[in-house]
Amino acid sequence: MAPKFELKTPKGTKDWDGKDMVIRDKIFSTITEVFKRHGGVTIDTPVFELKEVLTGKYGEDSKLIYDLADQGGELCSLRYDLTVPFARYLAMNRDIQNIRRYHIAKVYRRDQPAMTKGRMREFYQCDFDIAGSYDAMIPDAEIIKVATQIFDKLGWKGTYTIKLNHRKILDGIFQVCGVPEDKIRTISSAVDKLDKLPWADVRKEMTLEKGLAEDVADRIGEWVVLKGKKDLLVKLRADEKLAANESMKQGMDDMELLLRYLEKWKALDSVSFDLSLARGLDYYTGVIYEIVTEGSAPATIEGEPAPKQKKKKKGPKGEDDDRSDDPSVGVGSVAAGGRYDNLVGMFSGKGQIPCVGISFGVDRIFSITKARMAADKSHEQVRNTEVDVFVMAFGGKGFTGLLEERMEVVDMLWDSEIKSEISYKVKPKLPQQFKQAEVNKVPFAVILGEDELAERKVKIKEMGLLEGHPEKDGVLVLIDDLVKELKKRLQRKKELDDVARVAEGLKVVHGIKGDKKEEASVAAAAPADPLVPKVEEVASALAEEGKLADGAAPESAAEKLAGPTEAS
Amino acid sequence: MAPKFELKTPKGTKDWDGKDMVIRDKIFSTITEVFKRHGGVTIDTPVFELKEVLTGKYGEDSKLIYDLADQGGELCSLRYDLTVPFARYLAMNRDIQNIRRYHIAKVYRRDQPAMTKGRMREFYQCDFDIAGSYDAMIPDAEIIKVATQIFDKLGWKGTYTIKLNHRKILDGIFQVCGVPEDKIRTISSAVDKLDKLPWADVRKEMTLEKGLAEDVADRIGEWVVLKGKKDLLVKLRADEKLAANESMKQGMDDMELLLRYLEKWKALDSVSFDLSLARGLDYYTGVIYEIVTEGSAPATIEGEPAPKQKKKKKGPKGEDDDRSDDPSVGVGSVAAGGRYDNLVGMFSGKGQIPCVGISFGVDRIFSITKARMAADKSHEQVRNTEVDVFVMAFGGKGFTGLLEERMEVVDMLWDSEIKSEISYKVKPKLPQQFKQAEVNKVPFAVILGEDELAERKVKIKEMGLLEGHPEKDGVLVLIDDLVKELKKRLQRKKELDDVARVAEGLKVVHGIKGDKKEEASVAAAAPADPLVPKVEEVASALAEEGKLADGAAPESAAEKLAGPTEAS
Repeated sequence: MAPKFELKTPKGTKDWDGKDMVIRDKIFSTITEVFKRHGGVTIDTPVFELKEVLTGKYGEDSKLIYDLADQGGELCSLRYDLTVPFARYLAMNRDIQNIRRYHIAKVYRRDQPAMTKGRMREFYQCDFDIAGSYDAMIPDAEIIKVATQIFDKLGWKGTYTIKLNHRKILDGIFQVCGVPEDKIRTISSAVDKLDKLPWADVRKEMTLEKGLAEDVADRIGEWVVLKGKKDLLVKLRADEKLAANESMKQGMDDMELLLRYLEKWKALDSVSFDLSLARGLDYYTGVIYEIVTEGSAPATIEGEPAPKQKKKKKGPKGEDDDRSDDPSVGVGSVAAGGRYDNLVGMFSGKGQIPCVGISFGVDRIFSITKARMAADKSHEQVRNTEVDVFVMAFGGKGFTGLLEERMEVVDMLWDSEIKSEISYKVKPKLPQQFKQAEVNKVPFAVILGEDELAERKVKIKEMGLLEGHPEKDGVLVLIDDLVKELKKRLQRKKELDDVARVAEGLKVVHGIKGDKKEEASVAAAAPADPLVPKVEEVASALAEEGKLADGAAPESAAEKLAGPTEAS
Repeated sequence: MAPKFELKTPKGTKDWDGKDMVIRDKIFSTITEVFKRHGGVTIDTPVFELKEVLTGKYGEDSKLIYDLADQGGELCSLRYDLTVPFARYLAMNRDIQNIRRYHIAKVYRRDQPAMTKGRMREFYQCDFDIAGSYDAMIPDAEIIKVATQIFDKLGWKGTYTIKLNHRKILDGIFQVCGVPEDKIRTISSAVDKLDKLPWADVRKEMTLEKGLAEDVADRIGEWVVLKGKKDLLVKLRADEKLAANESMKQGMDDMELLLRYLEKWKALDSVSFDLSLARGLDYYTGVIYEIVTEGSAPATIEGEPAPKQKKKKKGPKGEDDDRSDDPSVGVGSVAAGGRYDNLVGMFSGKGQIPCVGISFGVDRIFSITKARMAADKSHEQVRNTEVDVFVMAFGGKGFTGLLEERMEVVDMLWDSEIKSEISYKVKPKLPQQFKQAEVNKVPFAVILGEDELAERKVKIKEMGLLEGHPEKDGVLVLIDDLVKELKKRLQRKKELDDVARVAEGLKVVHGIKGDKKEEASVAAAAPADPLVPKVEEVASALAEEGKLADGAAPESAAEKLAGPTEAS
């Protein structure tokens, strides 16, 4: 009864599981903590919107919107981003005149995927937006501060660049260079491609495709290649024609304030005021930004023009379209945003609410994080369950499995909120139980034996203790003291793990290490800790002590640990 | 430029925000903590699946599936539940032979909504499933234990019932009563309606609509009204005909084990072995369960047959269809599930993986929680931001607003991971700043004044301290000590809040109180704490001290607090 279709997830989507989920959740919690640190509150909007809500918001990209089938009733589309639903929400809730909202959710785009680079059809965005009428550039600066705190906390300090620009500065340059008013947005789109294409190609698009005069394009070319910080602002102000342009003036005043505030907030180091940044979406009205890192640009950007993309194939075998190996495709920006003062008014019809915000591309941040962790092997240390205690039993001939006794003990632990498990077998063998604990790197075993139970005692055994540790062979405790004794040891282990990390100078940031050069570890994963050796080391330590069955090479440390009392 | 369509979310969907989000998040974190306590790991599957994956899994309910429009490429549908995607995931990942997975995500059903009762078209499910070949009924019992721990932690102890039954017992009864083999599933569906309809109606459906002989229906009627625990099992075993039926035997052996294990796990109190429980979905093969609470059943269940549903209306004004006020619609079950041993095989074609699981309906749990909190006013205490410190400034004539100084101080706090904010105005008035802090119940103010800054000092003021408190007027600290001093006070406040709750005997469970009779509070919200009085109380205490501007009745406590130094 095998199904007649290929078993897969839809094109451009994937299942997330195992360590990937753990790493992604750590990224989410890092981002969420910073959002809350800046007063963020969260909202949740439906995954689909009325089709009309999305209409006319995304320009050329509207063709990438997923529609729901017409099954009678309203016509709906899957959300394309979180910004338009946020503006729709503000327009519907007139009593909310200001809010710092964050929203972490999936969005949908029928684009060509490049899966391993984190370019998906279904992907997460983490948005933080400040809505409300305020004095100029203070919220704008806080958004950038939020971004630096997130990337610093992810361990990316020094490895990312925040490209900044201002729509009014760009528009001013275009006006002064002689771009006709009706061509400004389309010429702006061409400029935006400078991170993927050399100037010669962009110039060709402006002149040949978009009909701009060659001398106008050349004048633009002199400006849009410039980057800097305050020095660039000085240079712009020094140009008389630019300085006389009204749009330029407003943009430069904003940018001057922004750079000053960012300096106060120690966020200027990673910033590059970059006149080539234009951003595709129409709705931006002020400052715009994009955060890039290694791998953001396509591999070919520095050399020849990018090779032509493969022709899009249609049909159910859509996964063949994955462009992960296409060198002309980079990871892209890891965060981007800007000010959009008119979007809410497109819904409300009146009552604008000025907004500025940023969106973090978690799938891309994840791809980069995972590649780094794979490079330094720290990925291997991630645990994907959080179980702290495995309750197991052993016995000699006639061993019953002690199921009900194991049930009673694990129940006591559950009721004390200790994460724990038992084997689901009535009569499990001890090596099987150790193996199961070992696979999931469970740090503690509680071992039940008939003789010990007769005295109301059980053994606590910390996995992987080194030779010479006073509790290496485990320690017998009264069942009535078990919870207390376990909590004490769990707490001590947590403290030791923390100390070890500090001692090693590890830069473990909420469980995710960013610095390539250091030995890596993840908060939940103890084994990298030098004070807490691996299970295999214990097994060999035990072997040296001559405590194990002689000679034979056991298949796993778990079997070694089982020792001679095993019931099999 | 107002849009030409009605601004709304699609029918059966809603935006979540404010306190509702905070309460819902607390429910999620309560549930997640228990899932992890039982070794759960999480996976995330796409929101849509290939249409073929969902085909043939939901029987009559398939008509409720949302399809995506055919825009070229694969045909997809929004997921209807999290169970079928989980089975598809297991079938695609052959290396995973066992897993305890949890999944918290939205699912989609084109049903008639009853919004305030938590019956939505887009709604959250929280699923926990144990997959793998194990000894009988141990995982099944753990699923029930998980449910009791979640509801107990939500504060629902004693207010819910876990209805248990077993497909093989039901099938055995049907066989013994004389139901033809090909009518068993449809008769089972009729029985399942006994929580909404009286027996007379169900009998009518069996005989008139489904063509069952009247004497067969009557024999079924004798059994399916029975409820109990072990006593019911004894009664079933005592019936010779039933005892001789093979399906019954298997079901009763399972049920006997299950009840024994649940007793070990102290989970038997809330259980009702209920022969009227049948569950709609075809894929269950063993134990089934459904958890109900007050409001689960329609208001009319005890009386006359339920009134006919209003005819479904079509068209864009779909929200008129909301059945929230329809007395024939209850909240329904708050959790449900069972064993499904054959579903993975429907995808893999071979290699069954037996599964048992449960799904929690968070929107319904939320509706009930919110109604309870509204009844005891605890809803009012919920804060929706977590900001701990508001950094503000004041000054006399020529006050500059001290923007850059406020920026420096708040930056220091952010970099120390203290949740804090400033006014986004260059020259904010002090009452405005206090008001903003008060609205969000921010517990601490850091106040900058020019004279104090000249000595590198700022004032820490805990909001709402009572008359006589040594720090009632705030305390001046060196800027260099600010972080340390604030952290000390934040920690102390947290401890006091905890102590106050214990002292009051409040049953605050991860921030959500379930017991109606007690005075309520939420972890994040301090004001209910008797040791930490409300802002208004401070204002009146200040007034008594004669520290405020005389006579005039200030509009708010914030204005009172501003006092005579105000710069406006």
